[in-house]
Amino acid sequence: MDRKLFAAGLAFALGAGYALTAFSQAKPEVLVKQRQAVMTLHAKYLGPLAGMAQGKIPFDAAIVARNAGYLDVLDKMPWDGFDPSTKGEKSGALPAVFAEPAKFKEAQERLQSEVAKLVSVSKGGDEAAVKGQIGAVAKACGGCHDNFREKR
Amino acid sequence: MDRKLFAAGLAFALGAGYALTAFSQAKPEVLVKQRQAVMTLHAKYLGPLAGMAQGKIPFDAAIVARNAGYLDVLDKMPWDGFDPSTKGEKSGALPAVFAEPAKFKEAQERLQSEVAKLVSVSKGGDEAAVKGQIGAVAKACGGCHDNFREKR
Repeated sequence: MDRKLFAAGLAFALGAGYALTAFSQAKPEVLVKQRQAVMTLHAKYLGPLAGMAQGKIPFDAAIVARNAGYLDVLDKMPWDGFDPSTKGEKSGALPAVFAEPAKFKEAQERLQSEVAKLVSVSKGGDEAAVKGQIGAVAKACGGCHDNFREKR
Repeated sequence: MDRKLFAAGLAFALGAGYALTAFSQAKPEVLVKQRQAVMTLHAKYLGPLAGMAQGKIPFDAAIVARNAGYLDVLDKMPWDGFDPSTKGEKSGALPAVFAEPAKFKEAQERLQSEVAKLVSVSKGGDEAAVKGQIGAVAKACGGCHDNFREKR
């Protein structure tokens, strides 16, 4: 490979706080930053849908379908960030994340399942069904947060 | 809709710094946080591929294909965060982002194009071709950062 070609790309890919060892095992603070980044984007793309389901902003089927597709990818991303090495890091994660891994996994799968249903339903164009499924996704988020994240 | 059902989901979806007005127009500091979150995830999923292309970690075709798919979605997400309302926010974005929107858009499209090629190439299983295309993606990242992000 052309080393120069990579110089710029790597400077980006590594960024502050990264090191070459991060390729195999990212540092705990990086893992926390990454998983929190996913949650920030969940909020970006679910927020407007929740507003639509509540009638606070106009329903837009195209936005729902787009965001559902994004969420369907994002909901795969946070979990490897909850590595035991991150137990001592400052974050909202409760000890239950590490003490009850099976229950935590179940909550992840519930979210993924509800989002997958939203992707499917959002293609059908039935506004009431779409709004109902947005609610189910929001409930799956909340269900996990209730048990595995500090109240705030 | 069931209001209680939404209570938990909304508390999540809105989070700190959000308000109901955020559904239509997020606050500048939220936009910056969201676009930086995407960049954090670009790094998470490109970093290991760059390491593979450089021979620093073992090549794993399945990881490349998975990460390429993730990047292909992530590379759609940051751009609406570069709203003119964010000009005054602390970030690494250079004034060129707002002064040269056509050039900025071109750089975005180049990244999207190179990532789309990586998705395609990563399905073929030709390791040398995949590594070459990882380099092209890294170059597209770097090309945009050179012109539109503060050096660090």
